[in-house]
Formats: sequence, C-alpha cells, structure tokens
Amino acid sequence: MAAAKTDAVEQNPNAGARGDADPSEIGRLIVQCSDQPGIVSTVSGVLAQFGANIVSLDQHSTDPSGGRFFQRTEFHLAHLSARRAELESVLEARVGEPYEAEWSLASPARRKRVAIMVSKTDHCLLELLWRQRRGELPIDIVMVISNHSTLADDVRAFGIPFVHIAVDSSDKTAAERAQLELLRGNVDLVVLARYMQIISENFLERVGAPVINIHHSFLPAFVGAGPYQKARDRGVKMIGATAHYVTADLDEGPIIEQDVVRVDHGHSAQELQRRGADVERRVLARAVEWHCDDRVLRHDNLTVVFD
Amino acid sequence: MAAAKTDAVEQNPNAGARGDADPSEIGRLIVQCSDQPGIVSTVSGVLAQFGANIVSLDQHSTDPSGGRFFQRTEFHLAHLSARRAELESVLEARVGEPYEAEWSLASPARRKRVAIMVSKTDHCLLELLWRQRRGELPIDIVMVISNHSTLADDVRAFGIPFVHIAVDSSDKTAAERAQLELLRGNVDLVVLARYMQIISENFLERVGAPVINIHHSFLPAFVGAGPYQKARDRGVKMIGATAHYVTADLDEGPIIEQDVVRVDHGHSAQELQRRGADVERRVLARAVEWHCDDRVLRHDNLTVVFD
Amino acid sequence: MAAAKTDAVEQNPNAGARGDADPSEIGRLIVQCSDQPGIVSTVSGVLAQFGANIVSLDQHSTDPSGGRFFQRTEFHLAHLSARRAELESVLEARVGEPYEAEWSLASPARRKRVAIMVSKTDHCLLELLWRQRRGELPIDIVMVISNHSTLADDVRAFGIPFVHIAVDSSDKTAAERAQLELLRGNVDLVVLARYMQIISENFLERVGAPVINIHHSFLPAFVGAGPYQKARDRGVKMIGATAHYVTADLDEGPIIEQDVVRVDHGHSAQELQRRGADVERRVLARAVEWHCDDRVLRHDNLTVVFD
Amino acid sequence: MAAAKTDAVEQNPNAGARGDADPSEIGRLIVQCSDQPGIVSTVSGVLAQFGANIVSLDQHSTDPSGGRFFQRTEFHLAHLSARRAELESVLEARVGEPYEAEWSLASPARRKRVAIMVSKTDHCLLELLWRQRRGELPIDIVMVISNHSTLADDVRAFGIPFVHIAVDSSDKTAAERAQLELLRGNVDLVVLARYMQIISENFLERVGAPVINIHHSFLPAFVGAGPYQKARDRGVKMIGATAHYVTADLDEGPIIEQDVVRVDHGHSAQELQRRGADVERRVLARAVEWHCDDRVLRHDNLTVVFD
Repeated sequence: MAAAKTDAVEQNPNAGARGDADPSEIGRLIVQCSDQPGIVSTVSGVLAQFGANIVSLDQHSTDPSGGRFFQRTEFHLAHLSARRAELESVLEARVGEPYEAEWSLASPARRKRVAIMVSKTDHCLLELLWRQRRGELPIDIVMVISNHSTLADDVRAFGIPFVHIAVDSSDKTAAERAQLELLRGNVDLVVLARYMQIISENFLERVGAPVINIHHSFLPAFVGAGPYQKARDRGVKMIGATAHYVTADLDEGPIIEQDVVRVDHGHSAQELQRRGADVERRVLARAVEWHCDDRVLRHDNLTVVFD
Repeated sequence: MAAAKTDAVEQNPNAGARGDADPSEIGRLIVQCSDQPGIVSTVSGVLAQFGANIVSLDQHSTDPSGGRFFQRTEFHLAHLSARRAELESVLEARVGEPYEAEWSLASPARRKRVAIMVSKTDHCLLELLWRQRRGELPIDIVMVISNHSTLADDVRAFGIPFVHIAVDSSDKTAAERAQLELLRGNVDLVVLARYMQIISENFLERVGAPVINIHHSFLPAFVGAGPYQKARDRGVKMIGATAHYVTADLDEGPIIEQDVVRVDHGHSAQELQRRGADVERRVLARAVEWHCDDRVLRHDNLTVVFD
Repeated sequence: MAAAKTDAVEQNPNAGARGDADPSEIGRLIVQCSDQPGIVSTVSGVLAQFGANIVSLDQHSTDPSGGRFFQRTEFHLAHLSARRAELESVLEARVGEPYEAEWSLASPARRKRVAIMVSKTDHCLLELLWRQRRGELPIDIVMVISNHSTLADDVRAFGIPFVHIAVDSSDKTAAERAQLELLRGNVDLVVLARYMQIISENFLERVGAPVINIHHSFLPAFVGAGPYQKARDRGVKMIGATAHYVTADLDEGPIIEQDVVRVDHGHSAQELQRRGADVERRVLARAVEWHCDDRVLRHDNLTVVFD
Repeated sequence: MAAAKTDAVEQNPNAGARGDADPSEIGRLIVQCSDQPGIVSTVSGVLAQFGANIVSLDQHSTDPSGGRFFQRTEFHLAHLSARRAELESVLEARVGEPYEAEWSLASPARRKRVAIMVSKTDHCLLELLWRQRRGELPIDIVMVISNHSTLADDVRAFGIPFVHIAVDSSDKTAAERAQLELLRGNVDLVVLARYMQIISENFLERVGAPVINIHHSFLPAFVGAGPYQKARDRGVKMIGATAHYVTADLDEGPIIEQDVVRVDHGHSAQELQRRGADVERRVLARAVEWHCDDRVLRHDNLTVVFD
C-alpha cells in the first residue's frame, strides 16, 4: 500500500490560486514619489472614499526624510471598469499633482501581452510556455521571435506564433527593423529567454516596452559570454542566474531576481551549465511573474520588488 | 598582497544599523481586527493628523471579505513621548472602538526585558548573549535561569545575573514557584534556549509574558525528545529547527520561524545534532529579534510575521 | 546594447555533459557487504588487473567495525562488453563469495527503461518528459499509465505511448492486473509522478522493479492526503517534497531526496500547492536521475546516495 | 506543558561526535598525482597490507585520461604511531616514487596550531573561539594578533594569548617582522578573521603556513573594500561571503567555501553588513574546519574539498 490518497485539490489544481474575486474588480495602484508625510493617508483615503477594500498594501521608502517613496496597493472595488475614469481623475488631482507622483492603475483583468525572443536553447522558453499553459503566469504570450528556426515546432505546439528573423551578424539593422515591426504597439513586455544577440540602444528606445533578460551568472560576477567556463576556472562554490531589465549598458541593468545553486570541484563546465539551466528557468519565471503582477518598481538602476 | 583594505564601516560596525532617528521618536502601531473597508485609511489618517511620517507599513488580511486584518506601522513623530497619551486616546476613539480592534503602541526606545531559561547546552544561550552584546538584538537580557549551574560563569562574564533553581523531577511546583517570583512583572519575554524541562500550564498562565521555545526539529516532524536520532532513523535528507510560542500543548504552539540544513547518509546522529545546533541558534535569534521588534502577530495558532 | 554574446557552448548544450568516453566502455560496480578490512583494496585490485581506470569512487561505511559497507565505482575499460563475462566471474570469485557481498555491474550504455504512472496533475510528469527529451535524464521512458485520460495528448506529443487504465475504487484488482501485464519484464523502474491511488502490496511484489513516489510534503511531516492544507493549518514557514521508494507502509519507504521552499502567512493553501509543485518536480527529477545513474543504494529503510 | 523532555544526548553533547576511535590510531592519507590506472588499487593495497581499515575514502580526477588525481583516505590502524615510519617508507616506495605523487600522512591526534589575525570587528574571531571551546573545531588556537587592542579582553577571557602589534600604514615592514617572529615555526595555519590590512608577498613567502582569509562578498563580485555598499549600489538580491587561501593576488586566491543570504530593497548597506556578518562567520568556520580536517587539496588556483 503506498502513494497518497486522492487529494481534494487534485481535481482543479489552479482554481482560485489567486483568490475568488472577479479580476475585473481588482485594481493595482502603483505610486512613486518623494517621501512626504501624509502620502499613505491620502492614497488610502481616496480608495476609502470610493468604497474600495484594500487587499494588500506594500510600501517602501529609501529614507523617510527626503527619500523616495514606493507603494503598491491591491484593492477590490465593485464596478471598477465603470468607475475607473472617475477614480483616475481623483487620483491625479489628490495624489499625482500635489505630491508630484508617478502613478498607474493596472488590473489583473488586463493581462500583459508578452513576446519572447530566443536563440536555440529551449529551457527558459519552455519554462515560460509551460507555466503559462498551467495557469501559473498571468500573461498572454503573443509571439516568439528567434534568430534560428530550431524551436519552431516546440513553440507552435503551444498554439503560439513563431517568427524566424535571421540576424546578419555584420549588420543587425534589418533584423531589428523586422523585430520592431512585429513588437511596437503589440506587446507590454519583451523577454529575452536566452537570446544570444546584443541588442542595440536604438532597439531599446523604439520597442516601447520593457525588456527582461536572463543572464547565466550571479551578476556582477562573470559578465559577458561563457560565464560557466569562467565560474569553473575561478573555482566558485556556487553558480547563479540573474534576471534584469535590459538597458544600454550590457549586463548592467536593474536586477529583478537572482538565485544560486551549490557546485563543487567534481562538476565540469558543462555540468555547471546543466545545473545553472535549472536556476535560470526558475529565476526568469519569477521575474516575469512579478513584473506582470506589477510587483517590480524601477528607480535609478535599482528595483523595488514587492513579492 | 592580500585581504581587504580598510573598510569605512569597520570603524563603527553597528552605528545607525537601524537608522539615525532618535528611537524615542519612533513608534510602532500594531492593529488587529476584522477586515473592513476604510481601516487602512483611518489608521493612516490618524497618524497624518498628528504629523507622523510613516517609515514602514505592513499589512495582511486572511480574506478581504470577512477575514482578519493585521497591520504594523512604524512611524516617526517628533516629541512622541510627550504626545503619546493624546495619540493613544485618539487611536482608541477612532480605531479601537469603531473597528473593535486590538491595538498597541510600542517604541524601540522601550527595549523588551528578556529572561532566558536554559539547561546545560550553551549554543543557543551564547548566541543570544553575543548578539545582544554586539548590538544586534534590541533587547535587555535581565536574567538567566537554569536548572543546572553549569553555565553560571559563562553568563556572568557578560555581566548578566545567573540564577540556579534546581528542579525536582518528581515535583516541579517549588521550582516553578521560585521561577515565577523572579519573572512575574519583571520581564516582557521568556526564552527557552534549550531548557529541557516540561513547563506546566500553571506556569504559563501566571508568568505574564509570552514564552518562546526552540525545538530541535522541523516541526511537526519529530515531536518530543531525541529528534536527531529519530531523523537519523527515518533517513531524512534535511534537518531543521523551529522557534515557536509555548502553549499548553507540547510542541504545538504557533510557529515563528523555521529553517533547515542538508544532511546525508554519512552523518551520525551526533553529527546531525552538531549541524542542527547551528540551525537552532540562527532560528532562535531571528525569532527573538522579530518578536522584540513587534513583527510577530498571533492569531489562533498561527503567526503573521512582518519580517 | 544588451544580452550576452554568443556562447560557445550554446551550439550543442548537452554534448559531452557526461564526458566524452564511449558509454559502452564505462562500467559501474555497486558493492554492498559487511565492512571488513581489505574490501576496497580487493575491489580496486580486480579492476586494476583488468586494466580498468577508475573514474570515480564513492564509499560509505555505517561503522568501520562491524558495520555495513557500500561502494560505487565508475570505471573505464576498453572493450568492456566483450570482457564483461570474464570480469563478472572474477568479481564473484574474489568479491562476491569471500566477502558475502551483494554486487552488480551496470553501464550507462544500458539505459533504464522507465514507466510513469500519473493521474491528472501534469507538472511532475512533464518535468520528466522534458528533461528526458533535453538529454538530461539517462533513461528511456517506455510508457505512461494513467487512471484518467486527461494527459493523453500531452504524453503522445512526446512520442511516448499513453495507456489509460481506469481504476474502480471499490476493487482495484482488475486495474492492477492490467497494469502488471504492461509492466512486468518490460521496465526497470516505475515512477509515480503524482499517481493518486493507493498501490497494493500484491502489486509491489509482482511488478519486478523498484517504484519511486513523490510525496507532496517534507516527510515525515504531513503524511497522507491534503498536506498543503495541513501545512497551512499548522502555520509552518517552509513546505517541501519527498521522493521515496514505495514499500508496503504508506509514506514510510526509504527517502531518496527532499527539498523545501520558504512560505509565509500571506500564502493560501493553494499558493502553497503552487510553490510546492516546483519543489516536487525538482525533487522527483533528481531522485529519478540518481536512481538511474545507480547512485542510490538501499539498506534497511535507508538510502545511501552517492550524488 | 511545553518544551522538549530531557534528551539523552544533552548529557554530553560533543562526546564521540567524530566517532569513538582513539584519534592516535586514525590516519589521513592525502595523495595527489597525475591520474594513472592502478593508483587506487596501489594505495588501498598498501593500507590493506598493514591491516588498516579504511574509514572513508574520497577521490577526484580532473580527467581519467591524463588529468590530475586527488585522494583522501581516512583509516584506522592499531598502533599507528609506532608503525608510522614503516608505513611512510612503504608509501614513498610504492606510491610516492613510482607515481611521482605528492602525499602526506596526517592524524587527528596531531591538532593543527592556528593563529588568528584580526582588526576591530569581532564576529568572525568570536565564532572561531566559541566553536573551538565547544569542541566543534579540531584545532588549537595558539595566539591572536591584532593591529588594535580593542579585542584583547575578549580573547584573553578564553585563555588565549592576545598580541597587539600596531601597524604603521606608511611602512608595514616592522609590523610584519614582529608578526613573523611570533608565527614562523609556531603555527600550521594563519586565519585572517577580518584583518583589515593588505599582507605583503614577503610575509606570505616567509610565514611558513597557509593563510586563510574571509572576504565579505561572493567573489569574484565586489572585490576590494566596501563590498556591502557596492552590493547595495548594484541592487543585488543576495549577498555572500568567501573563504579563500591568500595569495599574492588580492582577493584572487583559491576559494574554499562560499555562501549567500537573500536581501531586498528594504535593507540598507548597514543591514547588509549585519546579515553578511552571519554568512561570514559560518563560511569561515567551515573553511577552517575543513582545512584542519585535511579535507581541502589545492591545485593551481582551485581547491578540491572532500566535505
């Protein structure tokens, strides 16, 4: 006699994983401004005035005197869609203007549209596709773009468009133009899931959406190519991966998430690569989930992550 | 040429670790009640009315509709001591009564007075003494009580009173009476740092302070005595430790913190005990720190930890 | 400019991950006996006499005086297939008989044939299918058996036979008979990848292969059904998963691997289930890999894992 | 009723933690040479010929064809002291000469003599002193040398000599000469437990013992001074510590052990320093223990750690 008996939750593993509320009645208010007395009270006062019920509230201040203030408030408000314009107008008048705050109002009912860019390595791509299919990622994956055709069948098996755009390594202009035509205005996020090409500053300026990359090392250690071989040569006892926003400075953008795994002298560079791959997929999946749940706020070259 | 060059922070390693504000102007407001719309707004409104600046705010709701609401707000308020009575009166009128909320107002300027009870094993005791001396624990250790005299010299070397109260295993009444005489009214917290005696329900009712215990297993696995041998016999691949509030049910009180460490077939029960000891001291130190920073809220047999 | 430049290893991520040697010339000798002086010398002497080169050697003794001795030796020997019978005969004469040792000789060239049994939940199943396809698991998955037809398409997309055998919960005899007809003599390992049915002692006796189960808790905590709800109710701060060999005692078989992940008061039972699922797939994949690499030796109710 | 009942092991927590054998009858043979067929068999054959019983055996080869071979064998041999010269002579004749192997024979009965060098920060120093006193480190701490007198009382309370040698930052020659007079010929290991001075190549050449340093970052990230501030500025999500052998290249010596801890946006540089301090003491204690148990073998700029 062995194995566990039937589990009630087995029937419907993902039902209600994020609560039973109608997503269209859930709002997420993100506020960022100089820290000033009264800001929390003002924001929660506006929500109370509309009869919203705060579901979760996270806030951070780099320094209560003169620092930067960050807040994420998730609330339930009946008929949010209908009352949204009115709420936004009051928020601008009472929060945006007086506090000179950057703010935005999102809702889980409006899922982020995500494009994935990839080369030949499949583990990060598949992790995102699988999690999305299992209902674990609150996103719509609207296309996969690759500089190789290797992964076309894998992607299309998920019913997701796969577009092959070859990259001429001596001149990437044409390829980037083709990529931008597909992406601009169509996506809320671009994920580089082991896309092994340098991206130009021009691309970043024009794409109109944040870009998240997975780097296969624990940054800032082992920047650039071949990090597993470098890790092996240096004899480190842990290897890691880093998910970060892509900026004009290679491997220098704001870090969203990192993790590591122990290794030892018995592991070849290729074994490091294999173990590292498990960390990469885990770290990238978390970063994408947090970003798409509006949990990641950027400031200078740093992130505030309300996980 | 080796080792790192002089580090600026080296000069004064603990200065300002908790910010530069005068601790007497920092307040910590803990609120617990049924979740109702407007509670966050009301609390922050009261603080704003007094001109307080919110330093950090954590909240949790077991269910936004009809669940339990928990909030910890740390704020800066000039002349807090002088205005405390007035603030408390307004809080009771606007939060306590209308929301039927349990609330309390603490301040880091009023450090918790802690008694430690211990038998012969020193690692958990010493961890607390050392951290306290290094300024890492926001507490005053006012006495150590033991049923053995083994550790008297170690404790007194820290300038802390050590009291030996022998325990007659056939009748603990006299010992507990002597312990209660020392503790009642004198301490805010009792920590059992590997105190190897069952504590009576009568003691818990009379001591007038919460009691935290460190259990040397990852509860609820391996309750009772000899957990390392049990772990060895079962062949688990990780061992752990659990810090929990002590209740009348042995090893069943609300868990504050847990952690684990990997072990393998090569480790004897005594090697497990040795490795486990490192986890125990870490877990207990965290639990005591969080409790004394007013970060642990109890509800039924659970804790909400705002770490 | 962002993302990493082309990585040399990118071209062929799994090539040589386990070394460049011809797998048919790699042998793995597993020895288990009472610990006696000279056993290491005898085993390595036999291998040296054949001109084998030891690639890795792990050994463990529960007690050098009168304990149990375990050894795993991986070696390279040219023309191993041709010389295998001769080597086995010498091993039996010089190791098996004089030391009363249990021993076996495996080779990575002879991959383990694995059957997976599953109900409706897909994460553990897919983890094994994906890793196998990526060349990360040294196994052949020869069939998937399920008591539901839910996952048929997913499995067949990998080119692997899917067999639906309905289970009558009032009498499982017929279902087990049908399962045994498929399994007996055809597989080296059965993996229960969230198969939510009790397995009879009769099945275990007849199946002729070890059976590995993934239990969705950190055993021995939360045995039986519904471990995530139990974990939530107890308020533990970490949840885990356990891969173990299935024996006649439910949830009591020898543990191969365990791991945990931190959780907190903010996580519902369903969120625990979601986070736990990531631990389950990781733990099960490791256990299957180690078993199929002949790294797991059983003794009484314990395992020795040479990872 | 609470807390655990009396634990049998409580009586004598460290007794037999490393087995009950007489340490003078335990030998540790370390061998390093080019990998060649027969080496394992030859070494174990010599030990078998002397009637030694192998307690544990670890080996590693960078490449079975033409790589480097490392082995650590712990064995029990009655009357080892009396037979040592004979054993060494046979080892040289059968292993050292024919295989051109570097080898050495150690015994836990000959504890390593350790000097600790420290500046003003006490956490790493105290961790070593406490563990040594609890019987958890197999070493004799024979002196503590500091460029400040701050920690004199703490050290002397352990009955260990404390020597204050002031360092003139414009010319360290005199200070190093004084240090070398104390150290040369008197110690088997020097530990820099947060000693905030650059050490000269001359010192390293003359001191006649390996030197282990604890660096307060996860190398190779954040070399040099002020790593916690650098970590804060870069926004990493984990901080770490690295124990390494000191070589002429600052922060570039062979890494023995590393570990990390999660941090987030809410942690100031000083809070990182505080959390990092816990990692530093853990990592340094492990590295010192492994080194003194002869578990760390050096090769080029790498280590093989048989933990």
